Amino acid sequence: MAVEQRGVLFVVSAPSGAGKTTLCKGLVAAVPDLHPSVSYTTRQPRPGEIPGQDYYFVDEAVFQAMADRNDFAESARVYDQLYGTPRQALTDMMEQGQDVLLEIDPTGAMQIKKKFSDGVYIYILPPSIEALKARLTQRGDAPDEIQRRMQKIRQEILSYREYDYIVRNENLAQASQQLLAIVHAERAKMKRIDITWLEHNFLTE
Amino acid sequence: MAVEQRGVLFVVSAPSGAGKTTLCKGLVAAVPDLHPSVSYTTRQPRPGEIPGQDYYFVDEAVFQAMADRNDFAESARVYDQLYGTPRQALTDMMEQGQDVLLEIDPTGAMQIKKKFSDGVYIYILPPSIEALKARLTQRGDAPDEIQRRMQKIRQEILSYREYDYIVRNENLAQASQQLLAIVHAERAKMKRIDITWLEHNFLTE
Repeated sequence: MAVEQRGVLFVVSAPSGAGKTTLCKGLVAAVPDLHPSVSYTTRQPRPGEIPGQDYYFVDEAVFQAMADRNDFAESARVYDQLYGTPRQALTDMMEQGQDVLLEIDPTGAMQIKKKFSDGVYIYILPPSIEALKARLTQRGDAPDEIQRRMQKIRQEILSYREYDYIVRNENLAQASQQLLAIVHAERAKMKRIDITWLEHNFLTE
Repeated sequence: MAVEQRGVLFVVSAPSGAGKTTLCKGLVAAVPDLHPSVSYTTRQPRPGEIPGQDYYFVDEAVFQAMADRNDFAESARVYDQLYGTPRQALTDMMEQGQDVLLEIDPTGAMQIKKKFSDGVYIYILPPSIEALKARLTQRGDAPDEIQRRMQKIRQEILSYREYDYIVRNENLAQASQQLLAIVHAERAKMKRIDITWLEHNFLTE
């Protein structure tokens, strides 16, 4: 309720193919004062991805130099590509009272949770394992790649208990609404209310 | 996610005059599977109130007999009138997997919290103490009655730390949206997810 409050870190994670990128884009569009954290990656941009907005696309040497300087809050190798979350940008935004959205794979999410235990951890579930497989197939992934991913996804889902919320993406509109609801509800949490403001406005004569 | 899950108890409380009745009516209209708990009271119906829907209106003898049979989950004397929450109706709905909305004064809310610690406790704040006073005045309450209520309200607000959420009713549409968001978000909480369903659908081959 006051600018001085520390921002909230919302971490959205999912098995790949569950639709988290679409959901997160919708969320950022719906909540103008929610700032996406932009990660670094060594993978190639996919069609339509904008450097500096979707990711900072860097080569492996640049990434490694940043990792050596301890610039990442977390970094991970996912399907032979490196991904890293810039530490300073994240903490700067939060200290300025801005809420941050971090879209990240489950391995990264669990690393972030060790450092930012007061964040809000949200896991997006596909409607079913079959639906997930179908989405990966539609995307044109090779059969052995799909097989490898499905195995990894089963492992990842085992960590679901570490999250605060589960959003099942069976219907995009419903899942979007639920994600938005989580952001609004978290902002109304007692522990996030500026107590000084409240006591000043309601308890002084 | 499954019918077998125990229902969630949402407890909405506020100082009188903060607009909780209007907000709760809107919430029940927006969430068809949220069932309001109907309280018993010895006070007279206000214009437009429907017996059995807004309250069960009973005389003091009937109320006392129910209290003696331990029929109330909580009961309280508020401004010389008795109010009580029927215990059986509340637990029956929750055991049937239905989410319940309990609109109640702060004294009652704190009694309920001792018995239903897993409920979701929401406190509605008026925009300011001045706005609250203005609303009570508009409603036609007598000056000494307003004075008495304002004193009680300051005492009540001291218990705000006991709640999970604070919704500031500065703008009815925004406060309604925030209340609705809390219900949707709570339903997505990990601890409320049916683990058996999740493991069956995602972790078995």
